Amino acid sequence: AWYRYPEKEEAYINTFWPYMIPRRGNISLISQSGTIAAQTFWHAKEIGAKISKSISVGNERNIDMVDFLEYFKDDGQTQVIGLYIEEIKRGKEFINLVKKITPNKPIVAMYAGGTQAATRSIMSHTGSLGANEKIVKAVFDSTGIIYTNSVMEFLHYLRTFSFAQEYKVFPKGKKVGIITDSGGSGSMMAKTAELYGLKVPEFSRELKKMLFEIIPSTASAANPIDVTFDVNFFNLFNKLPKIVIKSGEVDAVIVYGVFDFDEVLDTMEKSGMVIDEEMKGFSTMIERAVLKPIKRLMKKYSIPIYFAGPFPYKYPWFQKFLSHDIPIFELWDYPTKCLKILCNYAQYRREQLNNIN
Amino acid sequence: AWYRYPEKEEAYINTFWPYMIPRRGNISLISQSGTIAAQTFWHAKEIGAKISKSISVGNERNIDMVDFLEYFKDDGQTQVIGLYIEEIKRGKEFINLVKKITPNKPIVAMYAGGTQAATRSIMSHTGSLGANEKIVKAVFDSTGIIYTNSVMEFLHYLRTFSFAQEYKVFPKGKKVGIITDSGGSGSMMAKTAELYGLKVPEFSRELKKMLFEIIPSTASAANPIDVTFDVNFFNLFNKLPKIVIKSGEVDAVIVYGVFDFDEVLDTMEKSGMVIDEEMKGFSTMIERAVLKPIKRLMKKYSIPIYFAGPFPYKYPWFQKFLSHDIPIFELWDYPTKCLKILCNYAQYRREQLNNIN
Repeated sequence: AWYRYPEKEEAYINTFWPYMIPRRGNISLISQSGTIAAQTFWHAKEIGAKISKSISVGNERNIDMVDFLEYFKDDGQTQVIGLYIEEIKRGKEFINLVKKITPNKPIVAMYAGGTQAATRSIMSHTGSLGANEKIVKAVFDSTGIIYTNSVMEFLHYLRTFSFAQEYKVFPKGKKVGIITDSGGSGSMMAKTAELYGLKVPEFSRELKKMLFEIIPSTASAANPIDVTFDVNFFNLFNKLPKIVIKSGEVDAVIVYGVFDFDEVLDTMEKSGMVIDEEMKGFSTMIERAVLKPIKRLMKKYSIPIYFAGPFPYKYPWFQKFLSHDIPIFELWDYPTKCLKILCNYAQYRREQLNNIN
Repeated sequence: AWYRYPEKEEAYINTFWPYMIPRRGNISLISQSGTIAAQTFWHAKEIGAKISKSISVGNERNIDMVDFLEYFKDDGQTQVIGLYIEEIKRGKEFINLVKKITPNKPIVAMYAGGTQAATRSIMSHTGSLGANEKIVKAVFDSTGIIYTNSVMEFLHYLRTFSFAQEYKVFPKGKKVGIITDSGGSGSMMAKTAELYGLKVPEFSRELKKMLFEIIPSTASAANPIDVTFDVNFFNLFNKLPKIVIKSGEVDAVIVYGVFDFDEVLDTMEKSGMVIDEEMKGFSTMIERAVLKPIKRLMKKYSIPIYFAGPFPYKYPWFQKFLSHDIPIFELWDYPTKCLKILCNYAQYRREQLNNIN
């Protein structure tokens, strides 16, 4: 499938049978399996992973992964590359080419081989001979390829880089600020961030003082900031991230607490509850009060701001964030996972580009 | 929140503000965070994790986790228990009690402590002092508690045990048969199954011969069975799993290839394609031809059959499987992960019950 011919914004070719068309963007896929090239489209659309081109190279009888990598290296629409690999053919060419690509365009890969049954499966699928996983991992590590065995991670990592590339937002270090209205999700994110090698530094006295000017005295400002039951959403989504970013004490921010407010208000109204004017107003001003300024903030400081909340992606408010290319996550597993991947890549990219200059 | 008073099927009490009500079932939650106790409900509903009772114990000033475990141990409606832990109080009582529960009722836990920022977060949240993660993991291991740092894993593992308990389907070993219409997802599932300690044995010559009677000659019957582009869904969803199960060569089966056929047929019709009569009929006979016989098969042989496909859970066909309590998964990450958890627990349960007898 080929998307986004520059001269024809709306034209596309889809030679796969799946009829789902994800949004167009800067991610291109090269896959030795048609399933990964096309059956991932329903999820890509749901989570807002925007595809440029998706190629199923099959058993590579006459044209292979290296050929397409060569093309995507210089393709203006491709800024992120996803690979599904059963066998690396032309190993030397692959390694040399990929080393040139990854400092500019991140590559995320799934490798299916390396175990007994997987090798049997691959041989019957593409006729390939899977290599030992350690060898393949060594190739990935030495060339800057990010790899995973999970297809949902694969899609989320691609989306992570898609945002970062589109708006040139690469964190300068590994210090994360966590802002939440829920102690449990805050604790779990603090924990996994640290397990993944990120830092969640306690904020300075000065910063804490500034924060306490707008959060309740029962709240915590140590990092995570836990505003507890304060439902001033403008503070949670805009003011607090802004203060934390401007402090210079973090390289990335995660905000937990996004609900589908249309749903919430609807239910509150039905059950006869009195609705706060501020809350009612918030639903109509989200774009102006949060999405647009947050995007400007991210770009200005090169600090990613990830949002998360308890709703599945399908809910309209989550899709609203995604339609503005604001990274949003269902629940709290992926924000820290994706941030780890992004921070590690940002460091790799700096090192590589410094070496060249 | 308390669900499923036996005398009043439709009555419930929900003292949390989230208004979502998941389906009723056999999973009960005890959580030191209201978020995990209630903000997980939207996802619980979406993936078909059916909740009996959900308790937020907060900082446990007067009633704690051990008190509720005591209650759930003998509660007829509770067959699976989920815990979110920031601190284990009354450690000795906790360990002794849990050891009695886990051979009959599986317990899945998230533990938020163990890192620096997490400890800071926990102290401000419930005032607890998190213990070293190694100590807590040792407690979990020695008492048969399954633990994870991922909330989506937490919900999927609870759902896994919910099905297993409800229909008494516990695999007798770790041999998995994989049936797929897609080489890529088959290879990835074979790989992760083996990485997780499951076995994906090559099928015997006799079994392969039987399989080749109903699959194309271009297909593979080695395990994974890859039917390739054969779209005989009755074979894929019913006949092939049945043959594999009756062979006695596996303890569990995964079938990849569930689509939302109403969606598929709708799109095919709109695009003017000719629709196969068999395919049209399949959409109306899924219940009689697949869901009901598959459930009987699982119960009869005590062999779980997991279905998977490329659609997000929200699609009507996925919800149709879930409404019949047939385990179904979006994409291919979770089937092998959940099967690993189930097989390990089934072994633990056998060993524990043998020790007692």
